[in-house]
Amino acid sequence: MLTLSDSLTRSLQAFEARFEAMQTRLYPTSETLHQACRYALAGRGKRIRPLLVMAAAEASGVPGEAALSLAIAIEMIHTYSLVHDDLPCMDDDELRRGRATTHVTFDEATALLVGDALLTDAFSVISDDDDLSTHVRVKAIACLARSAGGRGMVKGQALDMHWTGRGDFTRTDLDSIHLEKTGALIAASCVLGGIAGGSTEGELRRLESFGKSLGLVFQIVDDLLDGKEGTGKSIGKDKEAGKLTYQSIMATDEARIYASKLTDETLELLKYWGPKAEALRELGQALIQRTL
Amino acid sequence: MLTLSDSLTRSLQAFEARFEAMQTRLYPTSETLHQACRYALAGRGKRIRPLLVMAAAEASGVPGEAALSLAIAIEMIHTYSLVHDDLPCMDDDELRRGRATTHVTFDEATALLVGDALLTDAFSVISDDDDLSTHVRVKAIACLARSAGGRGMVKGQALDMHWTGRGDFTRTDLDSIHLEKTGALIAASCVLGGIAGGSTEGELRRLESFGKSLGLVFQIVDDLLDGKEGTGKSIGKDKEAGKLTYQSIMATDEARIYASKLTDETLELLKYWGPKAEALRELGQALIQRTL
Repeated sequence: MLTLSDSLTRSLQAFEARFEAMQTRLYPTSETLHQACRYALAGRGKRIRPLLVMAAAEASGVPGEAALSLAIAIEMIHTYSLVHDDLPCMDDDELRRGRATTHVTFDEATALLVGDALLTDAFSVISDDDDLSTHVRVKAIACLARSAGGRGMVKGQALDMHWTGRGDFTRTDLDSIHLEKTGALIAASCVLGGIAGGSTEGELRRLESFGKSLGLVFQIVDDLLDGKEGTGKSIGKDKEAGKLTYQSIMATDEARIYASKLTDETLELLKYWGPKAEALRELGQALIQRTL
Repeated sequence: MLTLSDSLTRSLQAFEARFEAMQTRLYPTSETLHQACRYALAGRGKRIRPLLVMAAAEASGVPGEAALSLAIAIEMIHTYSLVHDDLPCMDDDELRRGRATTHVTFDEATALLVGDALLTDAFSVISDDDDLSTHVRVKAIACLARSAGGRGMVKGQALDMHWTGRGDFTRTDLDSIHLEKTGALIAASCVLGGIAGGSTEGELRRLESFGKSLGLVFQIVDDLLDGKEGTGKSIGKDKEAGKLTYQSIMATDEARIYASKLTDETLELLKYWGPKAEALRELGQALIQRTL
């Protein structure tokens, strides 16, 4: 675990406080659905996407706190995707973030509804944030929906499912699947921060490239870690399920070299923002070296 | 089947044309996910919610066409809720709108992802509609997310699941479940039309009351029809599954009288708009008499 810089530590604290308040507001009752929503959100994730949103906002010249509702929305969407992904008809996983998955603790129907609620309510969090201009809210919602929906993350999940268990895929196939499945939401995180900071279209495209590239390296490192202790997931689960991994098409050393090359290209993209991108650079390096 | 008035017929035609174009834009590929999304959307629904959006827009003083993207978004959300509701872990239904349900034609995982895609992309449809001001888009998204999420429709579904198979519920319990499960989205349809027409907050509340009340009558009539031919659903399915129905707590005649009383109250609410609410009135009557 990396010691975060003061800037990222402050962002994380601000995020946790607002995230907690949001949960109290959205899911206040003792009904099973609300309890289950809070259970799913309480799994202590690494908060990679919210921190990326806030760091990208800083790079774009506004405080990370200006993008807090966008950070919360993307964490909710990430969480919903995990809850649905863990369901028996998908990956059928019983362990997530070191705890029993939502459908194990509750039941399948409740987990299905939890995912539906978190996904829908993520858009409430943005649309209800009166501190953002309507222009910023619409642009952020458009970005989030585009990245998370049938042309983005969900498409990536469908492709992943389609190819799982087959042996005839190439590195290009794998790259394109992960660019959607993991990359779309990581890229959206960076773009959302840029939107909060009033970035130009060119700057948003640059943030998107950084995010996509970072998402890909992240996935390669994730594959290299499958089967290792301390990841909070069922060990060796991906390999066992015949999942597509970089290690199934290239040697471990080769995957490391590929990751390293991508890393250099990724961090190079941040030079444009100079010192303002310090938090983004720190996050990128931490993710790639998996110290976060 | 009722013969629609010229005004509603024009609205329906405009809706179908834009709906088709939207599907081509959002789901253009031959990938299974996109094919399955189109399959789910192609089930010829009654278009009740889109027509309500457009009729409410007219009552509010703008052409129904001004609210087309809102009409499409709500039909997508309605469709996603049916796809997820039909899954084996929920109602486990094999027939919907007279055709095999999405998970039967494809598979469970694909149906899960179809629902996720339709729900997410519904927000894209609104946020990308440059013909609406950012103010209207934000307000519409806030309304839709609030009504469809964990404080609205999804909460209603969870409550319905919780009470199913139990005998100790009252008419008040049933009313409150259906006000969320069916009523939330029907009410949102009316409010969305009002938002497109620039209605005041007071007018929006009135539209919401009309929609909630209409949703309740709709549900009572739906229960009375369970087990009848020609509904496109598995016959007697609700009763067999121990679902909560008004007929399980009151005699059929009593349910008819309750529906009739609610109907009068519902249509009374439309007087405020005078002749501009003609399409809304026609729709309300058609829904209550189930000629649509």
